[in-house]
Amino acid sequence: MSDPQLTYRDPVAVLGLGPMGRALAATLISAGVPTTVWNRTPDRAEALVARGATAAPTVTGAVRAATLVITCLRNPAAVDSVLAGHDDWAGRTVVDVTTSRPDEARRLSDWADGHRVHLVKGAILTPTPTIGTPAAITLWCGDRPAFDAALPALATFGGTPAHLGADPGAAAAYDMALLDLFGTAVSGLTHAFALASAEGIDPRSFARYAAGIAPMLGEMTTRFADQLTEERFPGDLSTVASAHSGITHVIETADTHGIDSAVLRAARSVIARAVTAGHGEDGLARLARFLTPVRSG
Amino acid sequence: MSDPQLTYRDPVAVLGLGPMGRALAATLISAGVPTTVWNRTPDRAEALVARGATAAPTVTGAVRAATLVITCLRNPAAVDSVLAGHDDWAGRTVVDVTTSRPDEARRLSDWADGHRVHLVKGAILTPTPTIGTPAAITLWCGDRPAFDAALPALATFGGTPAHLGADPGAAAAYDMALLDLFGTAVSGLTHAFALASAEGIDPRSFARYAAGIAPMLGEMTTRFADQLTEERFPGDLSTVASAHSGITHVIETADTHGIDSAVLRAARSVIARAVTAGHGEDGLARLARFLTPVRSG
Ligand SMILES: NC(=O)c1ccc[n+]([C@@H]2O[C@H](COP(=O)([O-])OP(=O)(O)OC[C@H]3O[C@@H](n4cnc5c(N)ncnc54)[C@H](OP(=O)(O)O)[C@@H]3O)[C@@H](O)[C@H]2O)c1
Ligand SMILES: NC(=O)c1ccc[n+]([C@@H]2O[C@H](COP(=O)([O-])OP(=O)(O)OC[C@H]3O[C@@H](n4cnc5c(N)ncnc54)[C@H](OP(=O)(O)O)[C@@H]3O)[C@@H](O)[C@H]2O)c1
Repeated sequence: MSDPQLTYRDPVAVLGLGPMGRALAATLISAGVPTTVWNRTPDRAEALVARGATAAPTVTGAVRAATLVITCLRNPAAVDSVLAGHDDWAGRTVVDVTTSRPDEARRLSDWADGHRVHLVKGAILTPTPTIGTPAAITLWCGDRPAFDAALPALATFGGTPAHLGADPGAAAAYDMALLDLFGTAVSGLTHAFALASAEGIDPRSFARYAAGIAPMLGEMTTRFADQLTEERFPGDLSTVASAHSGITHVIETADTHGIDSAVLRAARSVIARAVTAGHGEDGLARLARFLTPVRSG
Repeated sequence: MSDPQLTYRDPVAVLGLGPMGRALAATLISAGVPTTVWNRTPDRAEALVARGATAAPTVTGAVRAATLVITCLRNPAAVDSVLAGHDDWAGRTVVDVTTSRPDEARRLSDWADGHRVHLVKGAILTPTPTIGTPAAITLWCGDRPAFDAALPALATFGGTPAHLGADPGAAAAYDMALLDLFGTAVSGLTHAFALASAEGIDPRSFARYAAGIAPMLGEMTTRFADQLTEERFPGDLSTVASAHSGITHVIETADTHGIDSAVLRAARSVIARAVTAGHGEDGLARLARFLTPVRSG
């Protein structure tokens, strides 16, 4: 494996200069990496050129200038259309950090195989201000030798880059499951603020207690992982049945105030399936087994 | 205010000996408080009697033996039926810690007013193993002088008992909003484990990254409270539009595996309302304003 302390000396191209692409390019430039940038809307490159980047007028120009090409675009469809803008990719390493589904990442890998490209697929789990700092969380997968060679460049993005294996869908799979948890938790947090506010509780007073839920979630994450691994769901701390009764109280309170309770009702349907299947006295991790319409656990 | 360090000397009755009622009674007994217990199913009192409690055969017997009566029952309907088991309540303090909606707590307060009872309404936010330890979180409201007089007894339950004001629904209001956040987060966590597992990621590997979401949730709670207070929703860290695109990827991935996506779809409907109203570039706290079917923010 390359020493990530070493400066990456080979030329890198960054295709896509949205907030994340700009953050990645700026970090490479600061680290002394020779960086060419390209964006569909060219003026987004200006500030980076002022800092030392070379702007390429076309995708072909950018790819020819580099051995390592980083794509950071809105979505996989945008990646497809940008990659189609150049013909001869043979021997290049493409590092794609565009958010995508695992199956889309695997399709991109098929494209890479067909074009003699080494594909490294990444997922960036933290927002732009973390890039270049220890707070960045990045996951990588795909071609391992290409990842090792690119590591001195990728390490400049911050955190501790982890390679999850050769499956090009692996990073996206983690990304999806983490976004699932994140998105649902944000939904619960904003809903709780709305409910508190309808009850006359101001946001900061509510936050003082709500912030206490976060450490509980961390503790639960580890505990649920153990229970799911061991297929044991003790109900000593909290039970599926008590969750059903608790969430029903919340739904009724939301309804009193005309607050949308669709998320809570959907969550309660899952809980109800577990109760109906006879798991009311089990712990809450059991619910992970009731997420297919026909019971699976 | 009474000094919570002092031992409470007046006789206390605990009505309801489920797991929580037993934990409360055991804590009072350990603290040297003279404790009478009653439960609909009498044999649940036995272990407490062995530790020094007096068992009353009827509600009337328990109430006559005490000046402070703690009710800890399955639900508000059970509280109503237990309270109906005795006639002359005049001058007693009733501390009800049964989980209930704010409107149910306010109805109980009406009953108290009609029976010359001082009502303290409580909400216990943490599970039984925390009772009597610093990890307990309890919220209280209702009759303030009665709360102050009862505090040496209530303080034995652990944590730092906080009184939220005279509104008898205040503790339940916090309880509902916190249960809202907790229940939705549990739903997201179990769903994320199911999705990870469908993608071939074992629970403990997933948990290693998922545990990193918890501190983010704590940080977001404080940040959202500030934004909701100031009515400013900057999109510098993450936007409503990017949440819409992210959650759509997750829904599509769940659908690929036949995993129930109803919670995510309901959450996306809220996000879509905010986008349609022109708030796509705002930060996520804005979503708290879109929880009524017709836009309110
Ligand atoms: N921002 C974050 O905090 C963050 C965090 C983690 C992951 N990510 C991921 O990083 C990727 C980039 O995100 P971002 O925040 O930088 O901005 P973004 O708004 O998601 O993407 C903007 C970039 O995509 C380009 N683009 C869109 N459609 C295109 C098309 N059909 N052809 C060519 N280029 C196209 C844009 O070009 P124009 O300038 O010409 O429109 C711009 O370069 C996304 O997949 C995102 O999910 C972002
Ligand atoms: N356990 C916890 O971790 C926890 C945490 C926070 C809050 N709480 C709240 O504390 C309260 C008590 O919970 P719990 O865990 O102790 O057990 P629970 O199972 O919710 O309640 C059991 C108690 O309610 C009694 N009961 C039920 N229906 C009754 C009726 N119609 N008439 C008379 N008594 C009736 C039971 O009597 P029998 O024994 O005769 O059935 C038993 O004493 C609940 O409101 C719960 O939400 C519990």
